[in-house]
Amino acid sequence: MADLESALAYARDHQKDFLEEFISFLRIPSVSTLPDHKDDMYRAADWIIKQLESIGFESVAVMPTGGHPVVYGEWMKAGEDAPTILFYGHYDVQPPDPLELWLSEPFEPQLRGDDLFARGASDMKGQIVAHLKAVESLLRTSSLPINMKYLIEGEEEIGSPNLGDFITENENLLSCDLCLNGDSNILAPDKPAITFALRGLAYFEIRLQGAAGDLHSGTFGGAVDNPAIVLCKLIAGMRDETGRVNLLGFYDDVRPLSERERSEMVSMPDEWWMEQSGASVLFGEQGFTTTERATARPTLDVNGMISGFTGKGSKTVLPAQAMAKISMRLVPDQKPERIKDSLEAYLEANAPPTVTWELEDMASSPPAIVERDSDAVHAASRALEAVWGVKPVFQRQGGTVPVVGLVQELLGVDSLMLGFGLPDDNLHAPNEKLHLPNFWRGIETYIRFTCEFGS
Amino acid sequence: MADLESALAYARDHQKDFLEEFISFLRIPSVSTLPDHKDDMYRAADWIIKQLESIGFESVAVMPTGGHPVVYGEWMKAGEDAPTILFYGHYDVQPPDPLELWLSEPFEPQLRGDDLFARGASDMKGQIVAHLKAVESLLRTSSLPINMKYLIEGEEEIGSPNLGDFITENENLLSCDLCLNGDSNILAPDKPAITFALRGLAYFEIRLQGAAGDLHSGTFGGAVDNPAIVLCKLIAGMRDETGRVNLLGFYDDVRPLSERERSEMVSMPDEWWMEQSGASVLFGEQGFTTTERATARPTLDVNGMISGFTGKGSKTVLPAQAMAKISMRLVPDQKPERIKDSLEAYLEANAPPTVTWELEDMASSPPAIVERDSDAVHAASRALEAVWGVKPVFQRQGGTVPVVGLVQELLGVDSLMLGFGLPDDNLHAPNEKLHLPNFWRGIETYIRFTCEFGS
Repeated sequence: MADLESALAYARDHQKDFLEEFISFLRIPSVSTLPDHKDDMYRAADWIIKQLESIGFESVAVMPTGGHPVVYGEWMKAGEDAPTILFYGHYDVQPPDPLELWLSEPFEPQLRGDDLFARGASDMKGQIVAHLKAVESLLRTSSLPINMKYLIEGEEEIGSPNLGDFITENENLLSCDLCLNGDSNILAPDKPAITFALRGLAYFEIRLQGAAGDLHSGTFGGAVDNPAIVLCKLIAGMRDETGRVNLLGFYDDVRPLSERERSEMVSMPDEWWMEQSGASVLFGEQGFTTTERATARPTLDVNGMISGFTGKGSKTVLPAQAMAKISMRLVPDQKPERIKDSLEAYLEANAPPTVTWELEDMASSPPAIVERDSDAVHAASRALEAVWGVKPVFQRQGGTVPVVGLVQELLGVDSLMLGFGLPDDNLHAPNEKLHLPNFWRGIETYIRFTCEFGS
Repeated sequence: MADLESALAYARDHQKDFLEEFISFLRIPSVSTLPDHKDDMYRAADWIIKQLESIGFESVAVMPTGGHPVVYGEWMKAGEDAPTILFYGHYDVQPPDPLELWLSEPFEPQLRGDDLFARGASDMKGQIVAHLKAVESLLRTSSLPINMKYLIEGEEEIGSPNLGDFITENENLLSCDLCLNGDSNILAPDKPAITFALRGLAYFEIRLQGAAGDLHSGTFGGAVDNPAIVLCKLIAGMRDETGRVNLLGFYDDVRPLSERERSEMVSMPDEWWMEQSGASVLFGEQGFTTTERATARPTLDVNGMISGFTGKGSKTVLPAQAMAKISMRLVPDQKPERIKDSLEAYLEANAPPTVTWELEDMASSPPAIVERDSDAVHAASRALEAVWGVKPVFQRQGGTVPVVGLVQELLGVDSLMLGFGLPDDNLHAPNEKLHLPNFWRGIETYIRFTCEFGS
C-alpha cells in the first residue's frame, strides 16, 4: 500500500537532488521545430528513459514516430483491479528566439529569487519532473495504489503531427482509465486551479508571389504590385477593429456561452491581464470579459510575417514574395477543417490578380471540454486543497493541448489537466521561468492525487 | 590633341585585358549596408585608386567621410580654358540576398552568353570601368581634350548619407562645368537613351511595439492586440486598390504632366514592362501609361517587413513588435520633408492605443529634372548616335540618384546621365548582370563623348 506521509517526507528531503536533476534536463535544448536540434531530441528522450528505469518502470522505450520519438514506460504492479492512469507530457520546447531579449542563457538555467529561468522550465519539463519525482517518492518509500503509464511526446510545440497515428497504432499499450495531463497551470501561487476546457487551433502559412523575382523599387514602383502590401490588405480585412474575425462563417459553429457558464467561470480582473501580459491596453470583442475573450471565444492572430529586406539599412527592393503565419484559436464546436475552408474562400475572393497564393495547413486541433463531475476531478480537487489550503477553482484555458482531443477520440478517456505553471511564466517567449514553490507543491499534489485516486 | 581613332583602336585591341580587370573589381563584395564588409569597401576603393594612378591621374586619394570613403582623382592637363567634367560613380553594391536565388555566386562573375553575371556588374561597377577604360584608351594613345575629375563614393546604395557634407567641404576641389553621371541605363541593346529626369526618395522604417514581450497566442489571444495586424491595417490604409497613395497632402506638390511632356516621353508598351519585370499582371494608378506611372508619378512601396516567428514550423507566438521599411518615390516638386510630415500625421491619426510607434528617416533625396538643350546633351547625343547608329531617345527614370540633386544644389551644375545598363539587368535583385556588348559600346561612347565635348 502507498504510504502518503513517507512519500511526502522523502520528497521534502530530496529537494536538492530533484532540483539538480531538473536543471540537467533543462540544459538539453530540445527544440522540436528546428532540424538542427534532432540529436538533442534524443538526448531529452533518453533523460526520461533513465529516470523511468531508475524508479523501476518496465517496457521503457524510445518509440519511433514519423517525426520525433515518443517515450513510453509503465508500472503495472497495482494489479488488474486498480485503475490505470496515463501521464501525458512533452519533452520538446519552443525555440528560444529572440535570443537578445533573454536576461540569462535559455538553456543554462538560472535561479533568480524563487524563479528558475530556462526555456521549457514551465512548458513543460518542470511538470514532467514534478510527476516523475512524485512517483519516485512513492515507489522509494512504499508503492503506488494505481497502475501508471507514461506517454511523453516530442512534437507538442509543433502541433503533435504524429501523435494521432502513434496512439492509433498503440491503442492497447496506451489503454487507461484516465489521462493525467501535466501541460497545464494554476491561476496564481495562491490560487490552485483545474482546467476543464481548452481552445483548439487552426494554424496556416500564407505565401504570396508577385513578380518572378525581387525588383528595384525605383525602376518598377508604379508598374508592378507589391505582395507585401497585398498581404497587409488581406490580413487587415481578416479582423475588424475590435478583434472580431471577418471570415465568412467563422462564428457559425461557436457554442454560445450560457449565463450559468459565465457566472461559474473564474474571471480575472483586467488589471491582472495587464500585469500578466505586460500590455498597457487590452483589446478584443465587445460584450465579453477579458477572461472570456481569452479562453471561451475564438480569435485570429498573426504569429509571424516577413517580406523583402529586413536587415539594417535601406535596400530599395520591391519584394516578389510575402509570407504570414496566421492562426485561429477555436472554441466548441468549431472545426479546424471548416475554418480552413472559410480562410480559403476569403483568399479566393480577396486576393488580387497581381499575386498568386498558397495556403499551407501547419497544425490543427479541435477544442475540448471535459467532464467536471468525475472521480478524477474530485481527487485532484482534494489534493490541491490539502496542499494549498484553499479549494481550487475551475477554469477554461485559452491554449491548445492537441492530445486532449486525441485521447478522447482514440482512447475514449477524459483528460485531467493538472499542472503547476503560472500565467506569467513567459511561455513561448523570452525569459521563460518556473516558480519553484509551485514545483515543490506540484510534487506534493501529484503524490496526494495518486493516493486519493487509488483509494 | 585627342586622337579619336587611335583611342577606339586601343579599346578594341584591349578587350580581353579590360574584361579581366573588370572581373577582378566585381570579385570584391563591397556591400555598403553590411558592417561586415567594411574592409571590402577599402579594397574596392583601392582598386579604383590603382587604376587612376596607372593612367596618370594626380591627387589620387581615398578621402574619409562620416561613413565609407570617397575616391578622388584628377587629370587637369587640358588647361584652364578647357572644360572640366566631374565623373560621378559609386563603388558600393546592394546586398546579394536572397542568395539561394542566384544561379552563380554573386561575387564570382560568370559569363553566360553575352551577359556577365555578378552583383554590381550593371549597378554600377561596369559603368565605372567603362569610363576608366575610355579615359585610358585616350591617354595611352594621345590625350584628353578636357579636364577630368573622379568622384566615386561608397554609399550610394544606402542613400548617400555623407555625400552632401563631403561635397560641401570639398567645393573647390570638385568644381566643374558638368557632372557626368554613369549610374544610368539605356532602353534596350539597340535603343540608346539619355535620362533627363529622376524620381526622388523618402525611405522610412516604422516600428510598432505592443506588449512588453512576445506572448503565447493561446494564453493571450483575445486579450491583447497584435502589432503585426496593426501594422498590416496601417499599411493597407496607405495605398488604395489602384496604388494611389492615401496620405493626406501626398499629391499637393506634384507638378502635373503636361500634354507636351507626355507626347515627348518614350513610353514602352505594357508587354515590355511585363517582360522586364517578370510580372504577369501590371498595376498602378488609373489614367497614366505604365511608363508614366513608373517614371513620372510618385509611388509608395513596402521594401521589407517582419514580425514574430518567421522560421520553419508553427510557433504560436503573439508578437510584441512589428517593423516595416516603407519608401516613396517622389517626382517634381515633392519634398521629402513634407512627405515625412504627411506619414507622421497618418500614423498619429490611425495607430490605435494598443501600440506605440517610432518612425525613422532612413534615406531621402529630392527628385531632379535636368536641362535638355545643352552642349553636354548634344555631345552625348552625337556620341550615342555614332556608336549605335540610331538617335538616342530622352527618358525619365523611376530610380533615384541622390547625387544629381546634391551637385545641382552644392556645385551649381547639371548632371548628364549617361550609362549603359539595361532595364532587365536585375539591379538590386538576384542574378544581376551586364550585357557585355553594351560595355564595349559604352567605352566607345565615352571616348566619343569626351572628344565631342572637348571639341
